[in-house]
Amino acid sequence: MPDPSPASSRSARPRPSSRNLPAPSPTTDPVPKRTTRPRDADARRADILAAARRAFARHAYADTTIAAIAEDAGVSPALVMKYYGTKENLFTQVFTFDADATALFDAPLDSLARHMVLHLLSTQRGQTRDPILRIAFSRHHLELGGQARANFRAQVIDALAARLPGPSAPLRAEMATGVLLGLGALYATVQADQLTRLNPDEVADLYVPLLQPLLCGEAPADR
Amino acid sequence: MPDPSPASSRSARPRPSSRNLPAPSPTTDPVPKRTTRPRDADARRADILAAARRAFARHAYADTTIAAIAEDAGVSPALVMKYYGTKENLFTQVFTFDADATALFDAPLDSLARHMVLHLLSTQRGQTRDPILRIAFSRHHLELGGQARANFRAQVIDALAARLPGPSAPLRAEMATGVLLGLGALYATVQADQLTRLNPDEVADLYVPLLQPLLCGEAPADR
Repeated sequence: MPDPSPASSRSARPRPSSRNLPAPSPTTDPVPKRTTRPRDADARRADILAAARRAFARHAYADTTIAAIAEDAGVSPALVMKYYGTKENLFTQVFTFDADATALFDAPLDSLARHMVLHLLSTQRGQTRDPILRIAFSRHHLELGGQARANFRAQVIDALAARLPGPSAPLRAEMATGVLLGLGALYATVQADQLTRLNPDEVADLYVPLLQPLLCGEAPADR
Repeated sequence: MPDPSPASSRSARPRPSSRNLPAPSPTTDPVPKRTTRPRDADARRADILAAARRAFARHAYADTTIAAIAEDAGVSPALVMKYYGTKENLFTQVFTFDADATALFDAPLDSLARHMVLHLLSTQRGQTRDPILRIAFSRHHLELGGQARANFRAQVIDALAARLPGPSAPLRAEMATGVLLGLGALYATVQADQLTRLNPDEVADLYVPLLQPLLCGEAPADR
């Protein structure tokens, strides 16, 4: 019977020790202890990463410790080191935007602006996941943030530019990303009175005229 | 002869004790000790505020101490408390945007978009002053940042809205501020490849078509 656990089906990571274990016998062993161990490992990895996201969203890199992340995740500092090696590596894992960019740009070009606005608002309003795009605003990690910035440029801006037809696609991708970042700042940080009162479709109606020309290849200075 | 000191001409703070002192005689007293004391106090106040800006730009509120700010400013913690009372009050002083907004909006309406872009870029490129507008991006102070957000809305967004003709001025002021915040994020945090290669006038040429319609009363959805 396949394992229906979302944690194990989501994870693409290899399970270091399971390959050397004998396959469990589902008919004779009603408590399959050996097969639950890798699943626990995946869950612990995810818990550690979530704790690291919370830590780096709230504290500067220099003020964040492996010990505090471990405590928040309910594991030992040694386990954090075993799974992620160093604080710097954990930081790099947190500041990876691939999955967010995939979701943000998951629409046909002619409706991409609206999708981007609605997706951004849904992730900022619901607080159901880590607001990775908004983390790009953090000023506190600048000393270390070279890798984070490089990730953001490659995984968000370059990924968008590759989708765009017309001249100056990289520049237009930067400007479109900037408009989105500004909208995110108005919502999440400034908590602007007017915009936060509108429903997402109304906000999209306001922002599509700013964004869609940048995406479709109409240089803003030509309008 | 007027005092040409930039420190004293910039400062709008009253000098608590100087009004009760006799005017110094420049011809008979080569070392005017009495008049330098209030200026020292002003300089120390400014040093403490600058140190607090650096501290709150780099560390979360909870990770920032009066002792560290005092050490950075080269004064005693007691002096910080004497001048500013509490850490919270010092934080509120740092997150005040009046002077920045005055400079940012110091242009006629028909050239306001270009002025805003050029002013933003000049303060972000030169690093000659504290980047108060960019501090609005900080996610680390959210727990305490109610007053900072209220200041930003009142001193930046409401001040801009009061300048704008036409319908929905508060909403358009929010959107225009958002476009600027996004540009600031592209420059300062993301350090976007394309935009940072352009000169300020070229960036203004790109952003005026996004910004000026918001300022002039043309609702973006009507275009």
